[in-house]
Amino acid sequence: MIDTLNTYQKRSNQQLNQWLEHLPHQSQPLIQAMHYGLLLGGKRARPFLVYATGEMLGCTLEQLDTPAAAIECIHAYSLIHDDLPAMDNDSLRRGHPTCHVKFDEATAILTGDALQTLAFSIMSEGDLSPIAEPNRVRMIQILAQASGASGMCIGQALDLSAENKTVSLDELETIHRHKTGALISCAVRLGALAAGPAGNDILPMLNQYASAVGLAFQVQDDILDIIGDTQTLGKPQGSDDKLNKSTYPALLGLAGAQQKAFALLDEALQALTEIPYNTDLLEKFARYVIERKN
Amino acid sequence: MIDTLNTYQKRSNQQLNQWLEHLPHQSQPLIQAMHYGLLLGGKRARPFLVYATGEMLGCTLEQLDTPAAAIECIHAYSLIHDDLPAMDNDSLRRGHPTCHVKFDEATAILTGDALQTLAFSIMSEGDLSPIAEPNRVRMIQILAQASGASGMCIGQALDLSAENKTVSLDELETIHRHKTGALISCAVRLGALAAGPAGNDILPMLNQYASAVGLAFQVQDDILDIIGDTQTLGKPQGSDDKLNKSTYPALLGLAGAQQKAFALLDEALQALTEIPYNTDLLEKFARYVIERKN
Repeated sequence: MIDTLNTYQKRSNQQLNQWLEHLPHQSQPLIQAMHYGLLLGGKRARPFLVYATGEMLGCTLEQLDTPAAAIECIHAYSLIHDDLPAMDNDSLRRGHPTCHVKFDEATAILTGDALQTLAFSIMSEGDLSPIAEPNRVRMIQILAQASGASGMCIGQALDLSAENKTVSLDELETIHRHKTGALISCAVRLGALAAGPAGNDILPMLNQYASAVGLAFQVQDDILDIIGDTQTLGKPQGSDDKLNKSTYPALLGLAGAQQKAFALLDEALQALTEIPYNTDLLEKFARYVIERKN
Repeated sequence: MIDTLNTYQKRSNQQLNQWLEHLPHQSQPLIQAMHYGLLLGGKRARPFLVYATGEMLGCTLEQLDTPAAAIECIHAYSLIHDDLPAMDNDSLRRGHPTCHVKFDEATAILTGDALQTLAFSIMSEGDLSPIAEPNRVRMIQILAQASGASGMCIGQALDLSAENKTVSLDELETIHRHKTGALISCAVRLGALAAGPAGNDILPMLNQYASAVGLAFQVQDDILDIIGDTQTLGKPQGSDDKLNKSTYPALLGLAGAQQKAFALLDEALQALTEIPYNTDLLEKFARYVIERKN
């Protein structure tokens, strides 16, 4: 699993680098900050899910490069904007200064903006296989839905409104299903749609899998914010607490949160049993999500 | 011309409002700020160009609603982000408090982000006529190219780097061809592509027209920043000077800048003579651009 994660990660980075190298004005801070924000560290979990889902359905990696690169651009832009002083005000990300610290705030805002646009440039310009081509517009559609005011953006907005308030478990789940879950689900769906009709058929089961894994990802993030250390995390430990954010451990206790993560893993694995392909990698990813240390 | 501008403006606003009303979480500040930023004032120059170009080529207004709405979302997002304290730090826009003043900075950042995404949701989900459908992916592509790191975003980045510096006329033109021109050109191209093959054939002449009009728009903006008054402009007069921005009047003198605007108008009108359709509205728009008072 870690080998495959590394292989996909490397491939994803090469692809992203190629897209960036095509841009004019390479010496401008904006373009340098796009390189910095997109390529410095990161697990590439979303490209992994695109590749793993697509390969399971018979795609080659080349046929998956376009959606894998596009979704990572969305993720990278969201991190850069979330770290801004007006948002979470974080100065460390993946063990390095955040974009607005390394460059400046204006550049960080523009960099996030341009990375979001790049995602849609990639989705509309990048190669797709002939079986995926009829799904291209739908793929753009679900990427936009997962990213915007019905997905990730409203998740971040709800998260900000919840600061310094106690939210219920239901509200917390709504926040995270949007903030993190929407894009994780989108990654799996993009991988499936890149495989053409075969992918369309198993979308409901994949959605169930991704929905559980996406939430598990966030529960584990909350847990790591308490039990992890800053060096392994690459970002300050305890930052949720600092912002008075409601978290799963705060609402359920640490043991309760860990139990929740295991229940979500079970849910994800259950969804996989109904998929008539080799789901080995997706299973390993689900386990990795709640076993990871950063 | 002003009548048509008003008709198109009203239609555009209705369309934008419909897209916003479909979003969940209407009571959230994010969604309220999207309404505020997208619908409060504004000339709808870009939707106008989509409608005028497409109608000239035989489209109905319905067939143009999708690209007209999408491009306005990109424009609105860029204004919200440009006004942020870390960018131009403007507190007045179209006679009203800017988004970060009315709401807060975090909400304004997210609102811009979500409006950008909405543009691509609209372009991928909105109705298009059967003759335009084969151009849909290309339309998404040119919208992304015009908005991102090869277009508007790099224009804003170059503009920021030029603050407190004297730039040459060539550099100033590069800034504005990206910052304002790219999206103006895109509007005309979207209108043409929505008309199918007829539009494809006249793209080169339309590009020439739009390129001149786009630059004229900026030259006139620079002129108005000096000779206009805050009330008519709806934003503080003299704000370029405050930021030590290089402008056409600063480089060419006021009369020189006005001469430049007229030369660009000539260039635009010249391009129109080669278009075998009724270019009346596009001609009037070009004149309006350099005659307007706000």
